[in-house]
Parts: sequence; C-alpha cells; structure tokens
Amino acid sequence: MTTADTLGGIGEGATLARIFPRLPSASAALVGPGDDSALLEAPDGRFVVTTDMLVHGPDFRLAWSSAHDLGWKAAASNLADVAAMGAVPTGLVVAVAAPAETPVTFLEEFADGLRDGCAAMAPGCGVVGGDLSVSATLTFAVTAFGDLEGRAPILRSGARAGEVVAVSGVLGAAATGLRLLFAEAVVGGEPDAAAAASLRLARPEVLAQLAPTPPIADGRLAALAGATAMLDLSDGLALDARRLAMASGVALDLALSAVGSREALTGGEDHSLLATFPAETILPGGFRVIGRVVSGAGVLVDGTAFDERGGWDPYEDWNGERG
Amino acid sequence: MTTADTLGGIGEGATLARIFPRLPSASAALVGPGDDSALLEAPDGRFVVTTDMLVHGPDFRLAWSSAHDLGWKAAASNLADVAAMGAVPTGLVVAVAAPAETPVTFLEEFADGLRDGCAAMAPGCGVVGGDLSVSATLTFAVTAFGDLEGRAPILRSGARAGEVVAVSGVLGAAATGLRLLFAEAVVGGEPDAAAAASLRLARPEVLAQLAPTPPIADGRLAALAGATAMLDLSDGLALDARRLAMASGVALDLALSAVGSREALTGGEDHSLLATFPAETILPGGFRVIGRVVSGAGVLVDGTAFDERGGWDPYEDWNGERG
Repeated sequence: MTTADTLGGIGEGATLARIFPRLPSASAALVGPGDDSALLEAPDGRFVVTTDMLVHGPDFRLAWSSAHDLGWKAAASNLADVAAMGAVPTGLVVAVAAPAETPVTFLEEFADGLRDGCAAMAPGCGVVGGDLSVSATLTFAVTAFGDLEGRAPILRSGARAGEVVAVSGVLGAAATGLRLLFAEAVVGGEPDAAAAASLRLARPEVLAQLAPTPPIADGRLAALAGATAMLDLSDGLALDARRLAMASGVALDLALSAVGSREALTGGEDHSLLATFPAETILPGGFRVIGRVVSGAGVLVDGTAFDERGGWDPYEDWNGERG
Repeated sequence: MTTADTLGGIGEGATLARIFPRLPSASAALVGPGDDSALLEAPDGRFVVTTDMLVHGPDFRLAWSSAHDLGWKAAASNLADVAAMGAVPTGLVVAVAAPAETPVTFLEEFADGLRDGCAAMAPGCGVVGGDLSVSATLTFAVTAFGDLEGRAPILRSGARAGEVVAVSGVLGAAATGLRLLFAEAVVGGEPDAAAAASLRLARPEVLAQLAPTPPIADGRLAALAGATAMLDLSDGLALDARRLAMASGVALDLALSAVGSREALTGGEDHSLLATFPAETILPGGFRVIGRVVSGAGVLVDGTAFDERGGWDPYEDWNGERG
C-alpha cells in the first residue's frame, strides 16, 4: 500500500479495508458495516430519515473543497435535516461513487471529515453502512437517521399567527463565502486551489461555505422549548421561510435589522435552523428572534411583501460549462 | 407541461410535483416526503438499513435498461439486502442525480418502476423521501429499511458444520442475460436498444438482468424457519458463499448438480438469497438445498476447493471506454 494507490488500482475490498477503521462508530448501532444491512436502535419505535447528494460540479469544486471538507459538509447538511425535525442524529449511511483514478487517500480523508463532522456536531452519531461504486462523476449520497426521544416531530406546518420567528446559526455566511471564492479564487477562468487556501485563512465565510457547522444540538433544544414549526435553511432564508409559511398557511414578517443584510436574506447553504415559537417562549440555545408570524401568505420584510426568489436552484443556476 | 419537458427546463420543484404522485406510499410512514426528514415506524425499537448506488456505465446502459427497469432494479437490489437480514422491507429513500437534459417522463417512469417493484416484491413498502440533483452522470442511490418483527438479525456469521446450504431464487440468470446482451445487443460496438428489446422477449434471462425479481418474502420465511446465516447473491454464488464461509469460520461444500451450471456458480446480480439451516429443517418458501456446511474454510464444489473469484467487481471489470 502506498499513497499512490487508487480505487481502481487496489479494488473495492482493499479500499474499504482502509476506510472502515477511520469511520465514526454509532452508539446506536447494533450491527455496523460488513453485513448485508446494518441494524440501528430506534428507542421510541420510530426513526427520522433524510437523504442528500453532493455532486461534483453543481455542489462542489475539487480545487476549493478538500476531501475532508466534503465529508464534513455531507454530514452537516444531512444532520441539519434531522435536527430540523427536533431529533437527535443517531447514524449515517454513506454511498460514494468515484472515478477509478481517485486516490485511496482522498477517500480516507473524506472518511476523516465524516468522523470529525459527527464528533463536532452530533457526538454519538456515526456511519453504520455504505456503498462504494465507480463513476465518471464524483458523487456522495448520505442518508441520516435520528431519534425523537418520544416527542412529536416538528414539521413545517405548525406555525400560527402571533408566534415569533427565530433562527439559530449564521445567515448568509455560506453564500458570502461562495461569492468570495468566485471573486478571488478563480484564476484564468478556473477554480484555483492556492487562492482558495489563502482566502480561507483570511475570511471565515469561506469556511462556512466549504465546511459549515450548523447548530445541530439546537434542533432538540427547540423541540424541548416548544417550537411549533422548523426547517433547515438550505436554499436561503427568504425561500425557505416562504416554504414554512406556505406549509403553515401563514405569513412570516422578518425584520431586516435582525436578519442583518440582504445576503443574509437570500444566501443559501448555511443549514441554520429556522423555527417558530409561542411569543412568550424563552428561546433555547443559539436561537434569536428575527420576525413574527402574521396572518396572510408568503414572506414580508419589515411589513412589505418580499417576492424575490433568492436561494439557489441547481437546475436553473448551475452552468455545466463553468464547472 | 409537455412530454418534451426536461429536468433543467422546468426545475426541481415542478419535476418533484410530477414524480411524487407516482411514488409508492409506505404503510409504515408517519411523515412522508415533503418535510426536512421523513418519520418511519420501527415497531420493535430497531430498524435494518442498507444502501446501494446504480451508476450509468458500470451498472447499467440506457440503450438496454428502460427507466422503469432502473426503478425496479434499484428497488430489488436494496430490498434483497433487507430480506437477507430476515427482515420485512418497510421503506425506501431515493436520491437521483441526472443530467439537466433528462426528460421528466424518464424520471416519472423511474418512479413507476419503484412503485411496481415494491408492489411485486414487498407490498406495503414505499418511498418515504428522496433528493434530486443535477449531474453529468445519471446516478441512483437507494437506501432501504426493514423491520425484524422482534427477531434477531440473520448475519453472515452464524453457519455451523453439519447444516445445509440452501438458496431461494435463480442462479446465474442475470449473468446469462448480460452475456446475451453483450453478444446479441451490441451493434457497431454500441449497445443497441432495438436488439435488446427483441432479445428480451425471446430470453427470460435478459429480464433477470434488467429487472430482477428476487424472492424478498423468503427472507422473513427463512428467519422464521431458523436460518443460521444468510446473504443476498449480488456478486455471484461462489464469491458470496466464500464471504459467508469466512464470516462463519466454516467451509461450504456445494453440489454442482444442484447448483446447475458453471454460470450459476459464478454469475452475479441475481440477488437470490443464500442461507444455512439446521440439517433437519423443512425449508420454507422457494429454498432448495445446494450443499452442506463442513469444517474448513472457503468454498468447495463436490468436495474440491473452488478458488476462482467469479462474480463481478466493477473496479476491476469495468472498462470506462466500453461504456
């Protein structure tokens, strides 16, 4: 085995033997990786599940994201969807499709990113199974599970007029980071690794884009404090707030002074948690009030309808040529 | 909306609105698609989980496989991993990454294949969530869940000398089908749709390759009958039997007359169930005896060590140029 080994060169079995020991173990796993399926505890007789893919091109660029970043981000985006139900993450399954020439060290560092991301954001959660395939396009598909500890799930549909709108986590940082990367880490039309590396040291928003740390534990705290609706901000505050408003049959009136900036209103990929609470609630964890639930439909900013799309739709926004 | 609509043309939201109504619903789903996560019942406080990717190129060719086939096969291969634990499949989450020019009708037919496959192989099991992304390479990642109904999982490691080796489902049919396709449905060096369509009508092995129907319900029946070890035959009888033998610390001695043919011994992708049972067991469902568990290591055929690899390793076998 050398650092020059590739997935195609040493094959699936030898690659998995190098990756398995680096993966985080899950305290809820009764049977872990290695059999046809894993077996996970679901203490209250139910489990929460979500899945999300990261695809080279639309979702990341290898010049900017390290393998460790990708493992961390794949964990973060899925853990946030579990947290947004008010659940505690218990396990992940991870499918990877990679070109045959991918270095095994790249996949080891991806596993390290999963491990470090789980340890930082959801201690006790680990990888219970997976799949490894060959593909022309580097693709990661993560499925995450969570435990509601006997509580009802916090859906998008429970917000009622008179409640407060609150958020935990950064707003707009990931989008600012992406804008900075496009502005300052593209050299001769191509994403540039060295420029991205220095930019990352200078600007924390770049880290928020490449390896975000959403407030996963605050999902459970929100549920315990009586949150009435919740979702994770994957596509930007304005767009995701509109989804919550539509599901609940209400309008959300946001205060721009509390939101902070226009980029905070429209930028996606922060995976922060947006929740509504009864007005008298003492907000838990990192939650802060950014608006009120009112009767009506859609999103208002300081009382005025805000209809811009904002956010990020990879189907419309991604230019394959640009990579 | 027209049949010429593409994923990139109408966007994620409109595409999902057309796919959702076609997906099978899961009787165990407490919260289905549409929120951050789904919520599934796990009646005995545990759940079985497995994940598997299908990638254009190594795993399928669009000239041979219809979208309906791909949905069916993605369901079948994952359901078989759940069945191989002795569990009853309860739900799937499905992530799809497709080129922007993919017709929406293609994704609708993929959903129909998932629905029809679940109805045929695991009634009550349905799709509880998913993800839709843009990618240069058409990729499906399915994660499946199952319920052990209070039983212990059937692992690969429980076989003991003196037991019988049994199989339920076809052996070698999928590999024969693939060989036929390469022999008779390649025109001018390229996979040919018309030739594959006529071949499919003439030879059932082609259907076993493109849309296999493994005996999912026999997984539960094997567990109820006292199976001591089980796995699903994804990489060929010889290779997978060796895995079971190694995990159990025994040897499996197979009878070629019962196995049927050399292709039945080495051909992969049938997703049939291989299990061991105490010798006196009246075998359930479609199980039939093909050998005995003996002391030693590895796989024997009629008493002689069989060391050929057999099976299919996409890292070593796939030639990207050949597509």
